[in-house]
Amino acid sequence: MKLLFPLALASVLSAVADPLPSWQETETKKAIVSFVENVTTPGSADYVDPAARIATFDNDGCLWSEQPIYFQAFYIFDRIKELAPRHPEWKEEEPFASVLKGEVEKALEGGEEALLKMAMATHAGLTDEEFRATVGKWLATARHPKTKRPYTEMVFQPMLELLAYLRANEFKTFIVSGGGIDFLRVFAEDVYGIPPQQVVGSSIKAGYEVRDGKPVIVKLPELDFIDDKEGKPVGIHQHIGRRPIFAAGNSDGDFQMLEWTTSGEGARFGLLVHHTDAEREWAYDRESHVGRLDRGLKEGPDRGWTIVSMKDDWNRVYPAAP
Amino acid sequence: MKLLFPLALASVLSAVADPLPSWQETETKKAIVSFVENVTTPGSADYVDPAARIATFDNDGCLWSEQPIYFQAFYIFDRIKELAPRHPEWKEEEPFASVLKGEVEKALEGGEEALLKMAMATHAGLTDEEFRATVGKWLATARHPKTKRPYTEMVFQPMLELLAYLRANEFKTFIVSGGGIDFLRVFAEDVYGIPPQQVVGSSIKAGYEVRDGKPVIVKLPELDFIDDKEGKPVGIHQHIGRRPIFAAGNSDGDFQMLEWTTSGEGARFGLLVHHTDAEREWAYDRESHVGRLDRGLKEGPDRGWTIVSMKDDWNRVYPAAP
Ligand SMILES: [Ca+2]
Ligand SMILES: [Ca+2]
Repeated sequence: MKLLFPLALASVLSAVADPLPSWQETETKKAIVSFVENVTTPGSADYVDPAARIATFDNDGCLWSEQPIYFQAFYIFDRIKELAPRHPEWKEEEPFASVLKGEVEKALEGGEEALLKMAMATHAGLTDEEFRATVGKWLATARHPKTKRPYTEMVFQPMLELLAYLRANEFKTFIVSGGGIDFLRVFAEDVYGIPPQQVVGSSIKAGYEVRDGKPVIVKLPELDFIDDKEGKPVGIHQHIGRRPIFAAGNSDGDFQMLEWTTSGEGARFGLLVHHTDAEREWAYDRESHVGRLDRGLKEGPDRGWTIVSMKDDWNRVYPAAP
Repeated sequence: MKLLFPLALASVLSAVADPLPSWQETETKKAIVSFVENVTTPGSADYVDPAARIATFDNDGCLWSEQPIYFQAFYIFDRIKELAPRHPEWKEEEPFASVLKGEVEKALEGGEEALLKMAMATHAGLTDEEFRATVGKWLATARHPKTKRPYTEMVFQPMLELLAYLRANEFKTFIVSGGGIDFLRVFAEDVYGIPPQQVVGSSIKAGYEVRDGKPVIVKLPELDFIDDKEGKPVGIHQHIGRRPIFAAGNSDGDFQMLEWTTSGEGARFGLLVHHTDAEREWAYDRESHVGRLDRGLKEGPDRGWTIVSMKDDWNRVYPAAP
């Protein structure tokens, strides 16, 4: 190649620098890079216009860890403890009573419904501004029970690189999570480079009112949308209005999102993070109470999805401590 | 000024070219330009980071005309006529019976509720793909009863320039409309340069299913969200997750969106298009059955909102015929 202009040199240099340094040189990395080159090379049969380069990412277990329980559940438990003095009735009422006694597993026995009940009890009534302030304060001070790290430092370095790599190739990156949309928005821009308008998640309803002359958005004690399983393609439809060409998840809650994404015409990419690394993170799949991955492992390969083995495909899990 | 480099020349030329040629040289135009310069000039007390430069636009009566009835209502009426052979019961059932008899005013007597009933009856059951195809076909062939133009040529040239001007200044432009979100998405990107993920609107619920091995999004006969009045700041919250710094509308249905936008801290801009031009478009406000504007005219000026007089502030209304 002849280097005629400084511009050409710069583009050669940036092509030479590895955009995915935390990914091992395995088939997985090759598949990702080859997909991105395919859809972005003008004249390629698989070329996709930048406007249609939509990539969606699950959050819990895909962009950050989710063990021993979803991190948002830790937030909700801490809020319940903080609010308990104003709710003497919680001492007798499940799942709150178990939370206050520190019996986390028992509190979560009620599954999604129990979690939702706690989320609504702790979120509703707050203005959006108040809610964001409590989450921001919690993220700044809370530490994970095992790693002792702030939760926002338990994001996956290889996935941060993947997000940046896609954006450098004119993809728009979205979060599509079963977690709370407004919880995610507090840190998604700083931590993932994903602005609030590109976050899709579960939500409770909101209202608008003028309080003492000051307009506010208030969270209401009513479920709005659950962004999980069939809900993920629906959330994508309502928020984004366009089918992604790339989707990443880690559990059977992402099955429909990957199915919807990869059944479109043209080149498509489905990615599942398989937690195989008990040493550096956690190892779990079919039997796990969070992030259960069974159908995806069974059907994924035949559907052309790429299963990422955390242990074999990543040379680093978390970012270096700042 | 010394012109040292071709780049500097280009930037001088583009600064000299008027980005809003269809706007008269009035106080209105000055106010818009001065706001944009204020929030985009580094070092200015009112400087706003590009990530927070969110601008929201109502659609009907703000980006395109809305007389004698909302254009989406024309679409719905045409669909009812098309589907009537499959619905013999509509001959006896209001508001369908009036539509089929061509009695438009009577069909609309039931107000928003009647319109919603017709929207659901004609939209529900379709896959998203089918729905988009019917809207696309209609937009390509339908003509406005008075102007005989395609509806997408009844957009306001000055507003197209305003959208482009804001985007050239690193604003993200969104539609926030009481109209149907998926109806708008069919043409918003081509006509306004606004991609589907930046459209907020009223919606019915959607479902995800696999039909004969093919995944589809299906529209359901259940109301999801009405994006009007208090619903506009709520829709902004749920979809965008960030308060706009610029909002434009034309009726009292936009009051809360402008109130929410302009009550934030720092420089804010609220704009109301006042339909004052019976000759080139329509003249209406307080007494109109569509786009009623009363409270906005009364309270807007004291709130610092800019009232655009179509007659006096625009030297052109529609784009030149292509
Ligand atoms: Ca997950
Ligand atoms: Ca309007």
